Amino acid sequence: MAKGKSKKSKKKQQGQLCDRIADALVVGDGFDVTAVDPASTPEFDGKEKDAVKLQQKSSAEMSDLQERLYANKGTGPAVLLIVQGMDTSGKGGIMRHVVGQVDPQGVHLTSFKAPTKEELSHPFLWRIRNALPASGMIGVFDRSQYEDVLIVRVRNLVPPTTWKRRYGQINAFEQSATDRGIHIVKVMLHISPDEQARRLTQRVSRPDKYWKYNPGDVDERELWPAYMEAYQAALEKCSTQIAPWYVIPADNKWYARFAVHNLLLRQLRSLQLDWPPADFDPKVEKKRIAASLPES
Amino acid sequence: MAKGKSKKSKKKQQGQLCDRIADALVVGDGFDVTAVDPASTPEFDGKEKDAVKLQQKSSAEMSDLQERLYANKGTGPAVLLIVQGMDTSGKGGIMRHVVGQVDPQGVHLTSFKAPTKEELSHPFLWRIRNALPASGMIGVFDRSQYEDVLIVRVRNLVPPTTWKRRYGQINAFEQSATDRGIHIVKVMLHISPDEQARRLTQRVSRPDKYWKYNPGDVDERELWPAYMEAYQAALEKCSTQIAPWYVIPADNKWYARFAVHNLLLRQLRSLQLDWPPADFDPKVEKKRIAASLPES
Repeated sequence: MAKGKSKKSKKKQQGQLCDRIADALVVGDGFDVTAVDPASTPEFDGKEKDAVKLQQKSSAEMSDLQERLYANKGTGPAVLLIVQGMDTSGKGGIMRHVVGQVDPQGVHLTSFKAPTKEELSHPFLWRIRNALPASGMIGVFDRSQYEDVLIVRVRNLVPPTTWKRRYGQINAFEQSATDRGIHIVKVMLHISPDEQARRLTQRVSRPDKYWKYNPGDVDERELWPAYMEAYQAALEKCSTQIAPWYVIPADNKWYARFAVHNLLLRQLRSLQLDWPPADFDPKVEKKRIAASLPES
Repeated sequence: MAKGKSKKSKKKQQGQLCDRIADALVVGDGFDVTAVDPASTPEFDGKEKDAVKLQQKSSAEMSDLQERLYANKGTGPAVLLIVQGMDTSGKGGIMRHVVGQVDPQGVHLTSFKAPTKEELSHPFLWRIRNALPASGMIGVFDRSQYEDVLIVRVRNLVPPTTWKRRYGQINAFEQSATDRGIHIVKVMLHISPDEQARRLTQRVSRPDKYWKYNPGDVDERELWPAYMEAYQAALEKCSTQIAPWYVIPADNKWYARFAVHNLLLRQLRSLQLDWPPADFDPKVEKKRIAASLPES
């Protein structure tokens, strides 16, 4: 009894932590991305090992909630985690260490690269729409529709009149996805230019990291201020009630993972999913099984 | 020095274990599926906890090898794990506990259900071909082209002349996939009818398992001998040098996971993958990074 109570109160505590992190990181009125310290660790004053331990402790709950989501496929909701960030900001680590915690059968992960010729021949949301998670799934976007107002804006890949229209189009799209039961969590991993320089330098210094390096990353890096301006616009125009943006200080990889873990956990919890009821008579089926194939 | 040597010898030992398991489980001449004891644990005389410990120990190596595979995407090979088995044989557990060990970014998992109308309007290998893993990926099939010579044969869904042709078509298809650099590992999870009855009974007894139960499973169960006959034909006709079948005794879930883990590890090791060389000059890039955006 006492144990049950303490377990419940621990869960409550964990829930409060999730809420505090969400409140601290959500993009609201008057938000300014340049005012966020990428080295900070909002609502967490422990060390890396404490964060890792806390994450491990709630990993079983994450797994359980994901299974409930999956069990309700066909009629239940879906979750979509959108991950954006400058090169080396740690998107891959989120995939490996946060998304990798749950059953791969319930995950639909899409990495959006530079669009193909076929993708370019369609409206920009076409390939995004095709990748939306089905009911029961956790969809994960590594880059997303936001590239169409980030690199596209910074690099002038379409006329300003076109990308300016896109913020509203994205909001309408996200509204319609939400109406179909897809719960969207959007995170931007926010690193400092110094930290990026350290990470890029590591990539060109270690033969096991060479494959992650692309000389073009330095060209993008030169456009840092323009990118921050484009991020600021996307964050402020597209952080909505139904699909809020969270900016995650990401100079500490462990904090970024910890924060995204808690945001995803919070989203899954908020669905309050029960196991679906039986669409058969358990007593009848128990007898059918017992009567079938009476070998040995 | 001494430590390095012992690490190497441990790795060698682990390699020998993988080989022994593969040799014990591979389908060769004169194989008879009904002679395999589903409760046995070939080449392993430890307990569940020992198997779990051994698996955890080589989990980091599995992860490293998967990353090397992924790093070589575009030019390097791919791996394809095909998982077959009767209902409740533990296919989902393999996805969660074996496939779930590696980075989800490098996994392309496909669950083949009863074919859709569109899929039925194409040759049976059409949907399979579309799901083959790209270079660098670990593809995983939960059910596969073999359904077209299993349920299809047992249930007479096509004329015998059609399914009889398919064994050769599957072998030719697997040969052509192999020629394109896809290394195929095929496992059949082999349970006993009694164990299936226990697992089905559990599913109709626990509300958190109801969703996994389908009354139709009992109808398939009644056809057990016909299924074993169809498996026997698929195993003996399609266990080839380039894409061998392994039959995994699966009454003990832990053993099945342990065995498939070791078979996948063995396949990844055999590729002997190096990190790809730099396609840039590391010295030049280090300078470019240092010279870029001299903030702070």
